[in-house]
Amino acid sequence: MKIQHLFEEISGDLSKVEAGLRQFALSQEKTLTGIGTHLLRAGGKRLRPALFLLSAKTQVYDPERLVPVAVALELIHTASLVHDDVIDEAATRRGRETASAKWGNMVSVLAGDFLFAQAFAAISHIADRRIIAALSQLVSNMCEGEITQFLNIFNPAQTEEEYLLRIQKKTADFLACACDLGSYMADAGEAVIDGLKEYGYCVGMAFQITDDILDVTGDDGELGKPAGNDLRQGIITLPVIYTLRHSPARDELRLMLGRRSLTPGEVSRGLEIIRAAGAVEYAAGLAGQYIRRAKEMINVVQDRALREKFSLIADYVGQRSY
Amino acid sequence: MKIQHLFEEISGDLSKVEAGLRQFALSQEKTLTGIGTHLLRAGGKRLRPALFLLSAKTQVYDPERLVPVAVALELIHTASLVHDDVIDEAATRRGRETASAKWGNMVSVLAGDFLFAQAFAAISHIADRRIIAALSQLVSNMCEGEITQFLNIFNPAQTEEEYLLRIQKKTADFLACACDLGSYMADAGEAVIDGLKEYGYCVGMAFQITDDILDVTGDDGELGKPAGNDLRQGIITLPVIYTLRHSPARDELRLMLGRRSLTPGEVSRGLEIIRAAGAVEYAAGLAGQYIRRAKEMINVVQDRALREKFSLIADYVGQRSY
Repeated sequence: MKIQHLFEEISGDLSKVEAGLRQFALSQEKTLTGIGTHLLRAGGKRLRPALFLLSAKTQVYDPERLVPVAVALELIHTASLVHDDVIDEAATRRGRETASAKWGNMVSVLAGDFLFAQAFAAISHIADRRIIAALSQLVSNMCEGEITQFLNIFNPAQTEEEYLLRIQKKTADFLACACDLGSYMADAGEAVIDGLKEYGYCVGMAFQITDDILDVTGDDGELGKPAGNDLRQGIITLPVIYTLRHSPARDELRLMLGRRSLTPGEVSRGLEIIRAAGAVEYAAGLAGQYIRRAKEMINVVQDRALREKFSLIADYVGQRSY
Repeated sequence: MKIQHLFEEISGDLSKVEAGLRQFALSQEKTLTGIGTHLLRAGGKRLRPALFLLSAKTQVYDPERLVPVAVALELIHTASLVHDDVIDEAATRRGRETASAKWGNMVSVLAGDFLFAQAFAAISHIADRRIIAALSQLVSNMCEGEITQFLNIFNPAQTEEEYLLRIQKKTADFLACACDLGSYMADAGEAVIDGLKEYGYCVGMAFQITDDILDVTGDDGELGKPAGNDLRQGIITLPVIYTLRHSPARDELRLMLGRRSLTPGEVSRGLEIIRAAGAVEYAAGLAGQYIRRAKEMINVVQDRALREKFSLIADYVGQRSY
């Protein structure tokens, strides 16, 4: 199943979001417009705008007020990806050359800043304090999560707890924010807002854990980026943390990380150790727990068809193979 | 004369701005807090918050609403400096080691993002559409100006007109925004707002031209950064543009820039050619014109003592030797 099927109900407004994204990517400086267009064409699932709009379906759905916020969410997401790619020195994302590989790090830093600023430009006429506070908090959180990740590359002492806090800040809080703001703008009651926010958080946690599993199990073509990418960069994910505690070959992996630079052969061997440790099954189990909790939370949604959609999205996130 | 004397009237609120800056530099990630604190200690004249607050003195002055916006202006300024230093690969600024030299580019990118986000967090409770639009526009403009500068390093074909547009986006629009928002929040009439906005623009143009002159005439100790820094990096400033058109040694300078990498000896020789061309006098003349225009604009300010202060600030910017 393609996730886009679950977004049919809001596909008209998602098209408006696309138009908004193109509009806010425009700059007098044509290199900036070029980067923005490149990034937007690379696409992505538009999961954040979609969750936001679906969350607004719980009560009063006003597309004119909603679309700009959806645009802002995706602009922030895109900006953070550009800066992540600078920081990770990534060459490809979603199967396409990254902005940093194509235009260089310096231009990419500015392009990311531009998109962050445009996100706030997109919502300036709405001027709702809760929305501005949520979006700025979101960016601050992501920066904290990313910096913690960066400062801890190749650090084998990281705990599962630290990992979970880091991916919360990097990913889960973002989806929580999308659901929170969508239901808030729809004037849904407090119970619905709280429930959907927790739903978004759980889906986000499962999403990131699944992403980290795919880096261990996936192949380059499916991922749109090289497998073992995290390991090569020294990003210590849940499967690695599990392996470093439970694998008979844990010392070999620890020594490998200690060298802070892995050959392609070592990356392959590392992935082998991780897979053999049962780390994938463990991480998948934890992702499954988050998915189950996400599905419990959506009982706050009254409309049965809508609830079903949230449930299928959660399943999709838990099962996706790319 | 120290510029701080001109800020006496608002010194109490500038202290509150300092407290606000410290507060918004705090992060759960202590490395981020460390960078923020380092940057804030490096100081600077707080020209943007000061111009903003003084502009609000034209009518209804409400510090409780004003201080957060002043904090946001300085946070945006600081964030842009951090990213500029990454882009320029600068080692020192204001006589202190830059964040990028001390913590590396990757961490500095995230620290800048964090400060940008915190700027919007600082004004979230005010939620005024004009303020949010102005601040986001400001950041977008600065990115455009910086990217144009970056894409044109070592490009001797740049015109004076292109230079002026670039420094408008990089610097003048920022001071214009500070004056604009200050008088807007004070509920000053349209004439006062427009006049002070133009004042800020002119002061900003003079400020940047003077900065570019100082890079040619200054010495390292006074500047807090190496003299000839712009030339070494290939940033084509007004004195260089003038020299490339009018100096008998213009071909020598053009060839030097064409090599895209200057030895210290070449930087010295380049500065010599620029000084001998009368480029400093030409640029100073243009800065003087902006200062004069700035002083004409402040006739919109009714209060004589306040008008005098704006006038002295303009003079200060035109005459500063550091």
